[in-house]
Amino acid sequence: MNAYSRLKQNFSRIAVLDEAAAVLGWDAAAMMPAGGAEARGEQLATLAGLSHELLTAPQIAEDLAQAEAPADGWEAENLALMRDAHLRATAIPRDLVEASSRANSACETIWRVARPKADFSLVQAALAEVLNLTRQKAEILSEKLGISPYDVLMSQYQRGIGAADVAPVFADYELFLGRVLPEVEAEQRRSPKEELPPGPYAAAVQEALCRRLSQDAGLDYSHARLDRSAHPFCGGTPTDIRITTRYDEQDFCSALLGVLHETGHGLYEQHLPHGFMRQPVGAAAGMATHESQSLIIEMQAVRSDAYLNYLAPVLTEGFGRVISVDALKSRLRHVERSFVRVEADELTYPAHVILRFRLEQAMISGALHVADLPQAWNEGLRALLGIAPPHDRLGCLQDIHWYDGGFGYFPSYTLGAMAAAQLMAAARRALPGLDAGLAKGDLAPLNGWLAENVHRQGSRLGFNALLEAATGEKLNPAAFQAHLMGRYLPGR
Amino acid sequence: MNAYSRLKQNFSRIAVLDEAAAVLGWDAAAMMPAGGAEARGEQLATLAGLSHELLTAPQIAEDLAQAEAPADGWEAENLALMRDAHLRATAIPRDLVEASSRANSACETIWRVARPKADFSLVQAALAEVLNLTRQKAEILSEKLGISPYDVLMSQYQRGIGAADVAPVFADYELFLGRVLPEVEAEQRRSPKEELPPGPYAAAVQEALCRRLSQDAGLDYSHARLDRSAHPFCGGTPTDIRITTRYDEQDFCSALLGVLHETGHGLYEQHLPHGFMRQPVGAAAGMATHESQSLIIEMQAVRSDAYLNYLAPVLTEGFGRVISVDALKSRLRHVERSFVRVEADELTYPAHVILRFRLEQAMISGALHVADLPQAWNEGLRALLGIAPPHDRLGCLQDIHWYDGGFGYFPSYTLGAMAAAQLMAAARRALPGLDAGLAKGDLAPLNGWLAENVHRQGSRLGFNALLEAATGEKLNPAAFQAHLMGRYLPGR
Repeated sequence: MNAYSRLKQNFSRIAVLDEAAAVLGWDAAAMMPAGGAEARGEQLATLAGLSHELLTAPQIAEDLAQAEAPADGWEAENLALMRDAHLRATAIPRDLVEASSRANSACETIWRVARPKADFSLVQAALAEVLNLTRQKAEILSEKLGISPYDVLMSQYQRGIGAADVAPVFADYELFLGRVLPEVEAEQRRSPKEELPPGPYAAAVQEALCRRLSQDAGLDYSHARLDRSAHPFCGGTPTDIRITTRYDEQDFCSALLGVLHETGHGLYEQHLPHGFMRQPVGAAAGMATHESQSLIIEMQAVRSDAYLNYLAPVLTEGFGRVISVDALKSRLRHVERSFVRVEADELTYPAHVILRFRLEQAMISGALHVADLPQAWNEGLRALLGIAPPHDRLGCLQDIHWYDGGFGYFPSYTLGAMAAAQLMAAARRALPGLDAGLAKGDLAPLNGWLAENVHRQGSRLGFNALLEAATGEKLNPAAFQAHLMGRYLPGR
Repeated sequence: MNAYSRLKQNFSRIAVLDEAAAVLGWDAAAMMPAGGAEARGEQLATLAGLSHELLTAPQIAEDLAQAEAPADGWEAENLALMRDAHLRATAIPRDLVEASSRANSACETIWRVARPKADFSLVQAALAEVLNLTRQKAEILSEKLGISPYDVLMSQYQRGIGAADVAPVFADYELFLGRVLPEVEAEQRRSPKEELPPGPYAAAVQEALCRRLSQDAGLDYSHARLDRSAHPFCGGTPTDIRITTRYDEQDFCSALLGVLHETGHGLYEQHLPHGFMRQPVGAAAGMATHESQSLIIEMQAVRSDAYLNYLAPVLTEGFGRVISVDALKSRLRHVERSFVRVEADELTYPAHVILRFRLEQAMISGALHVADLPQAWNEGLRALLGIAPPHDRLGCLQDIHWYDGGFGYFPSYTLGAMAAAQLMAAARRALPGLDAGLAKGDLAPLNGWLAENVHRQGSRLGFNALLEAATGEKLNPAAFQAHLMGRYLPGR
């Protein structure tokens, strides 16, 4: 067996361990009794440790040194991704890895106390330590990889795009939002708002509808489950997708749109290239790409006029109450300046991300000190949306990301939203009957196009290269802005 | 860190991997969509392979060679169990392990075809190969361990008792059964049989009652779940017990007694000694001991007069139908000569085990050839119960055990039943109010006694030593026979 074949075998083994951990992680969220938590923590830590041991084993280093670039493009990219994973796993001294991991856990624990109290001072020192160690790690990799420390962090979640690409796109969106948001608000004030019928909507009925609609949207339930958990997510493995949601009996929209969002993630995983299963190049291309696939289902397809015309009678029949298209539109397309990212509409959502993108860049570069974060946050939000939170629980304490060491993740949300619009526009060009299909609840043509142009590409291409191959150009915020104009200010 | 401490750390790591596999195994049976099976097989095989690698690592051999026997009895036994596990894992050449594993899988697959066709000839050659390789493995270990090949196989499942101990106990039971069974049948013919009300009994109502009764029986549901699977079992880990059952809406007894049976297994696991969690000496003492704990709940406690008097009104209220004590007794204490072990009553069940014990001993010694198994089976059952199966599906093809390489397991069932009776008798002597408690559905005193005398003993003692410590004598079939006489021929 040659070096590259041995590498493939070892990376496959690592992927299998990660699969086991994924199922155990789903179980912890959806099934496990509370008393199982301690043992589960040990199981997950042991699997992570073994996975890391396998990745950093001497044999891997030897084989990477010996392996020659395969002629085939997929295999060559696979080898390159192996090198990158190995470098990232071995470049940071073990002491620093462990100190950082401990600091992240400690800070997250304190954050869980500080957030409900809206008391940033409690967690300030712990966050400073998290940041300090994150910067140290990023600087080491920055030298090895030849990209900036912030780009190192971004590239942990999504390769193929960096801060220099993102900054002008976000600046452009800021201008767009400043111009368009007041107009959308004015339009919204002028339009009559139609209410959905009041609850309760039985959870069991919601669940059956969610399952049916996600199945109709293409998810193969011989390779998937839908369950409940406190925080909705899409977990499991490509051949065994585990979607979770929670049901609010006063509001069926939250679970329904949530499940269809996770369905987009699940479709991506189900259509990954089978020939490269458990190889780096066969995995999804990154978090921004993943988010583009959940949002193209949730925001582009399901919230479209066409699909809502299909959905309203399905819900009316399912719930035995009249759910009108107009009421669905009022509910699912309501725009409002608000403090909390996860509750924001698609128009103002990017403002929350832009704020965090700028603040985390400044923290990583050293220009912003943790002590000054609350003030910078409030000023930043006021500049973007004209509002400032009444306290830090609705401000810089709202997201877990920084407090558990997750710097560089936030841009993925908005890159995903923009990519979704760009991919949808390309799919519409390629498939003239797409909207006619959506009006009948038929997502098969869209899914087929996405499977070919995104899902089955695995990790062969970085973010911009994938977009370019699929749509003819790298990330261009025009498609997203056109989508928003069409939906919120039609005819302008 | 000294050699023994390092061993403890490494054995703990192995146990953590085995825990992960246990949860994944439960998921495969209770949750996994069919399409996840292939990947799950890979995950479980990888975890088993890693667990085996860790156990056979050179460091373990070195540490075992260096480690001095700890002064503490528990620690000394722990080290002895480590040596035993390591020896068993390393003594067999890798080629033979793999050939045997392949032969077992192949034979089991053929058996799944042969059984429904009642065609032993289909699987005969495959079973011969399984037996051949099983004998080779047993002979290697026989030399290393200084016990007979058959005892090697028995001791995989339960240490501390061998064929020489079991044979006279079983011979004695054969005589007892020959004398008592006709009398019980005659008595049963004389007694009026009261029927339970006909179904359906809604599965959801059954499930709620099963959960409540198993909780009342002592299972801590902050560390347990109850779910559904095709084949009921108790899986998971000591702090996260996963019980499964299946519901027959025409017959609530099957799930109810099944869940209470698994509850006994779960209680054992929940009460294992925490100080030796994930150490060999902290695990359950073996399959016969485990079965004694499920049967002491199911057969001794729950089927007792006292508990049935409590149970009948609970079921009457739960199902909204009159469930009388007499009808429960008619259903749960019905004795009948039958062909199938898993459907047998507690009086005739041992006959099925005795048959298999004798046949598998003869196969392992070479006295019985696989080709002659069907005839030997039918003659053996006729000698024990006076009946012979009409075909091999109800005969030597009924159980999976031999066909997947499981020789030496069968005695555990009856050793467990006998030990359960012996432990119950000892508990009654120690706790005069035990039956008065059962009449109120209170199993706490029994559980407390079992926790102290069995559960918290972990694997410190072998089967007979544990019984001797708990009851004053090693396995003595008199208690089981007295129990059966009291229940089926009261007053004789």
